[in-house]
Amino acid sequence: MAIRESVFNTIITCFKRHGAETIDTPVFELKETLTGKYGEDSKLIYDLKDQGGELLSLRYDLTVPFARYLAMNKVMNIKRYHIAKVYRRDNPAMTRGRFREFYQCDFDIAGQYDAMIPDAECIKIVTEILSKLELGDFVIKVNHRKLLDGMFAACGVPDDKFRTICSSVDKLDKTFWDDVRTEMIEEKKLDPAAADKIGMYVKLQGSQDLIDKLMQDDAIKSQKSAVEGLQDISLLLKYCELFGIADHVSFDLSLARGLDYYTGVIYEGVLKGFTHDPSAKKGEETVSVGSVAGGGRYDGLVGMFDPKGRKVPCVGVSIGIERVFAIMEARAIAAKAKIRTTETEVYVVSAQKGLLEERLKLCRELWDANIKTEQAYKANPKPLTQFQYCETAGIPLAVIIGQSEIENQFVKLRNTVTREEKNVPRDQMISEIKSELEKMT
Amino acid sequence: MAIRESVFNTIITCFKRHGAETIDTPVFELKETLTGKYGEDSKLIYDLKDQGGELLSLRYDLTVPFARYLAMNKVMNIKRYHIAKVYRRDNPAMTRGRFREFYQCDFDIAGQYDAMIPDAECIKIVTEILSKLELGDFVIKVNHRKLLDGMFAACGVPDDKFRTICSSVDKLDKTFWDDVRTEMIEEKKLDPAAADKIGMYVKLQGSQDLIDKLMQDDAIKSQKSAVEGLQDISLLLKYCELFGIADHVSFDLSLARGLDYYTGVIYEGVLKGFTHDPSAKKGEETVSVGSVAGGGRYDGLVGMFDPKGRKVPCVGVSIGIERVFAIMEARAIAAKAKIRTTETEVYVVSAQKGLLEERLKLCRELWDANIKTEQAYKANPKPLTQFQYCETAGIPLAVIIGQSEIENQFVKLRNTVTREEKNVPRDQMISEIKSELEKMT
Repeated sequence: MAIRESVFNTIITCFKRHGAETIDTPVFELKETLTGKYGEDSKLIYDLKDQGGELLSLRYDLTVPFARYLAMNKVMNIKRYHIAKVYRRDNPAMTRGRFREFYQCDFDIAGQYDAMIPDAECIKIVTEILSKLELGDFVIKVNHRKLLDGMFAACGVPDDKFRTICSSVDKLDKTFWDDVRTEMIEEKKLDPAAADKIGMYVKLQGSQDLIDKLMQDDAIKSQKSAVEGLQDISLLLKYCELFGIADHVSFDLSLARGLDYYTGVIYEGVLKGFTHDPSAKKGEETVSVGSVAGGGRYDGLVGMFDPKGRKVPCVGVSIGIERVFAIMEARAIAAKAKIRTTETEVYVVSAQKGLLEERLKLCRELWDANIKTEQAYKANPKPLTQFQYCETAGIPLAVIIGQSEIENQFVKLRNTVTREEKNVPRDQMISEIKSELEKMT
Repeated sequence: MAIRESVFNTIITCFKRHGAETIDTPVFELKETLTGKYGEDSKLIYDLKDQGGELLSLRYDLTVPFARYLAMNKVMNIKRYHIAKVYRRDNPAMTRGRFREFYQCDFDIAGQYDAMIPDAECIKIVTEILSKLELGDFVIKVNHRKLLDGMFAACGVPDDKFRTICSSVDKLDKTFWDDVRTEMIEEKKLDPAAADKIGMYVKLQGSQDLIDKLMQDDAIKSQKSAVEGLQDISLLLKYCELFGIADHVSFDLSLARGLDYYTGVIYEGVLKGFTHDPSAKKGEETVSVGSVAGGGRYDGLVGMFDPKGRKVPCVGVSIGIERVFAIMEARAIAAKAKIRTTETEVYVVSAQKGLLEERLKLCRELWDANIKTEQAYKANPKPLTQFQYCETAGIPLAVIIGQSEIENQFVKLRNTVTREEKNVPRDQMISEIKSELEKMT
């Protein structure tokens, strides 16, 4: 939790820096709200027992509840973040950061705005967070659903197979092209020639150069949807350049993202140190734990909850915080870092028996001066036990009292690390402690 | 959420000042973990649908999951806080702060310690939080389960009726004695003479004087359990005196607390401005919304989850945060206070068309300098619209650029409140903004 708190702080600070407010939605939604939003994965939704009243389910993500909230409260524009737990009736896989209960950290911009301005800001946010968390080098892959659709059409994929072929492409960060091709042809009955054309495109990645090249491609440029997607990405890349993050952004035709509801730009933040293991055997599924952020534009979801079908365009990003936690925790363990679980600054120590009342008075004084203070909950604790506690818990200062300190109106102030001690007049204790603590930070 | 965040901050700061760490437990527990812990209220537990696997329920409070966690992880001592939502299948009553999903803020000290030291610290924490939240004058009522048991025995209540009579006494903050007496006699078949003796005791409240008086009371002093309870309370009051909070503490024989699991000291923080409405008609149930914190000692709960029945003594306090929110929100509305939902410090304004790219560069510079910044998501927003947004959203500063500002390498800095504007060289913009923001706080 101590590691988690610091990660949350970094993320919330970033979301607030971009002017977001936070809203809260309930942990359960009406079952019907979630129905038909997650495709095949709907089987992972936790339902509540029918104990009379409404049929409820635990939320599966934070995006559908957000869209439901916007429609229900007729909110036409908002920039909000939401950090909360979601629930999936899945087989947990701890090492891959897959749990039944886990946090999502979402930031979304809802409103009718000019093209790519909010979208570029979402990508800027991902780069700020990943840089600040110091997770090593990373890349933000970007692509566009309209370009994917245009590309599928250009390759000869029938309209009604766009979504399912898109799901196959989405597996390219975990499996090899040959396996994805087999799935397309054998399971999804795609013409092998179409699959091979797709295989040619999904290898491509680049920047404005790739956009220019595709704009020259006869099959692509004849698809209106593909051209619109390319224009969006071109504008997005320009804005990323102005935000100073172009080096982190890669236009990548293999990026597809699983969820059905995306309608425009899609993106994914991938840590370079944790990508697809190239030594994995062919056919073996490896997991890209490197993917730690993802999102995109979903302009149709709010309309699904509005009685009049009124649309509110949205774009957002979700930070894959459980993977971040896993990486940070593994790193802390590897570094044998001592992680403090409390923030206690001062421990009040009795040097002798019979000083409980004096300690209580000291604690009161310290707490009232807003100094984080602890003491032993024993009437007569042993001095050695108290000093050991300070060292184990990493409490930087000890205030020590004995009979002579009390009689002469002073306290002994001990630095736990250096073990240096000095006498401080009782009435200067607070200011002395504050200046010592200041020196330490 | 903006009000809630500031309340949470106050509470968490206090919990950390007392050396607590935080832990997290899942939102669902095995159904059997919750069974038999909440008496009659068990009917309010939300169960999950049986979709195969374990039978699960949503947590009803944070105390039982905490005790389960201690037993399961063999934790013998810990000081932890936990702020999270709990679930009750109840009829919501918004005005009374009763919901199906609501936050609890719990602080607990687990471990085998000397009498009343942790208990007094819990009471100190309640006074610190209630003072800091500025909710008006308050009192912390204290009592002791052993004293209640001894008192019931002294009044002639049969052993097997202790808990149910205790539940009746617990209603005294909501109903009148006459109604409680009727319930004891008619529903719970208590001898009227016993009820009348109870009625005499539960009127008593005081301090050390009342302890001395009860120690002289023949019926009470012959009950071992009552004497033990009185000794504990005497020590507790002494420690509260040393903590400088004795003025807030009242020993009150009518305090009973509903839950079965308390075994020692119990307490409740009550706001004086919101107590039992004396103008309510007799027989009418009024609710003391004034009760905003409560807790006590529960030495037997952890042992119920330990295979060997090993006990871990615990004492804790729960802040009734939904009531606090309700009071703070009502107060903010009454004061017509403008509550900002974001923390944005600077809004970047285009004075003319065609300056989007310049705005994007400015935003980047401000974000990278950790300044909370927003801008319009339009390519060519109207200046008036932008200024109005600053005023509505309470953003204190605007950075304005026009063609001449860009050509001459400066920006206009505008104070939203005073509407004063000044020209600042572009390369001094960040430091100038930081010093303006500093002046405002």
